[in-house]
Amino acid sequence: MTGWVAVAGLGPGDEALVTPQVRAALDQATDVVGYIPYVARVAPRAGLVLHASDNRVELDRARLALDLARDGRRVVVVSSGDPGVFAMASALFEVVTDDAPDIRILPGITAMLAAAARLGAPLGHDFCAINLSDNLKPWPLIERRLRLAAQADFAMAFYNPRSKARPEGFARVLQILRDECGPERLISFARAVSTAQESLLTVTLAEATPQMADMRTVVIVGNSATRRAGRWVYTPRSAS
Amino acid sequence: MTGWVAVAGLGPGDEALVTPQVRAALDQATDVVGYIPYVARVAPRAGLVLHASDNRVELDRARLALDLARDGRRVVVVSSGDPGVFAMASALFEVVTDDAPDIRILPGITAMLAAAARLGAPLGHDFCAINLSDNLKPWPLIERRLRLAAQADFAMAFYNPRSKARPEGFARVLQILRDECGPERLISFARAVSTAQESLLTVTLAEATPQMADMRTVVIVGNSATRRAGRWVYTPRSAS
Repeated sequence: MTGWVAVAGLGPGDEALVTPQVRAALDQATDVVGYIPYVARVAPRAGLVLHASDNRVELDRARLALDLARDGRRVVVVSSGDPGVFAMASALFEVVTDDAPDIRILPGITAMLAAAARLGAPLGHDFCAINLSDNLKPWPLIERRLRLAAQADFAMAFYNPRSKARPEGFARVLQILRDECGPERLISFARAVSTAQESLLTVTLAEATPQMADMRTVVIVGNSATRRAGRWVYTPRSAS
Repeated sequence: MTGWVAVAGLGPGDEALVTPQVRAALDQATDVVGYIPYVARVAPRAGLVLHASDNRVELDRARLALDLARDGRRVVVVSSGDPGVFAMASALFEVVTDDAPDIRILPGITAMLAAAARLGAPLGHDFCAINLSDNLKPWPLIERRLRLAAQADFAMAFYNPRSKARPEGFARVLQILRDECGPERLISFARAVSTAQESLLTVTLAEATPQMADMRTVVIVGNSATRRAGRWVYTPRSAS
């Protein structure tokens, strides 16, 4: 048996957002490797070994997947959303070696695009995606990137906006955004999109509070042209 | 019959990347509206009316979809990729009125994420997406946004990099990138990803030429840490 590793995106939660390509890889797999809540989304079956691990052990998990595949196993590493956006694909390449088995990256619906779809079209013009976790980068870089993104008039999507470990960080983000974008700019909080716990909220930066976000929330800030249309929020395709 | 409009993303081309949610909407539709090559991807069947239109009539197309739904039709507006990324969702909200029918936006696999998956994980850290078409925005804004994005050290994905109508624009983009990022920065050209015509090329900015891109190409520029691992290109999750 020739082993392989597929790093697959399960999308934001709804099974109707899992691509047939990912479904086929899971059907062929002998092993599923991933963070506990993502592995829990894979239906158990005879012959399928589930390897669930805790957060912050991404490199160990990647090495396990490569080792299993070298032994001839067919391994799916599961990420939520898309595996290439703040997820497991980069971790795998950080530890890949010259004798690596066959590797495929299988895209998925990433959280910001699922959130944007539920909100309307807030990312309908040029935009950026920023991971606000400071586990993997220093705060001054986050601040510098936020200011430049605002000056470029990008719409912005934020992943990992707020955690118990750094409750003050997101308050600083909101203050920087108010400085750069003014109080009337629209900001949307999309929590647990596509699941039974989904909630959506759009306010102005003046009205936004840190408590509106948690680690299951994607935050989307409009550009200077972003507006409401009834219950929807969208960014026009044109810019002047 | 209660009409509705679903604006649906068909993904980059491979049918295995069309979500079950989009497939279900197409199965329920009475009408499909969209740009000619996207409508051509929908299988004809009895009772399904296909409304294919040319490029640059997005607002007319959006009005047609809303009018049909007001008459009780079940309408899917098809986009390639994701409908919220440089596609039909914003156009729909630009013309929506207070008496609008039920509207849903159904996300899809957008071209940059399909391209990133085939290349490795070049968008594995903070990144931005820029539409290089100057149909909808002035060139000075594109240039300013490119320079700020480079200074923010974003990885970058470019849609619509080059067309017959403006062959010189992408050469100017490459020159700006060399100025801001230096000659050794990696740039990838991913053409017709997930189709039989797919081609992938990664070079340095010094080696890049405008002819490497056309309108079927997504261009991805790495950040300062983007590197190769064998045939793959990836951006590490950490930044210093």
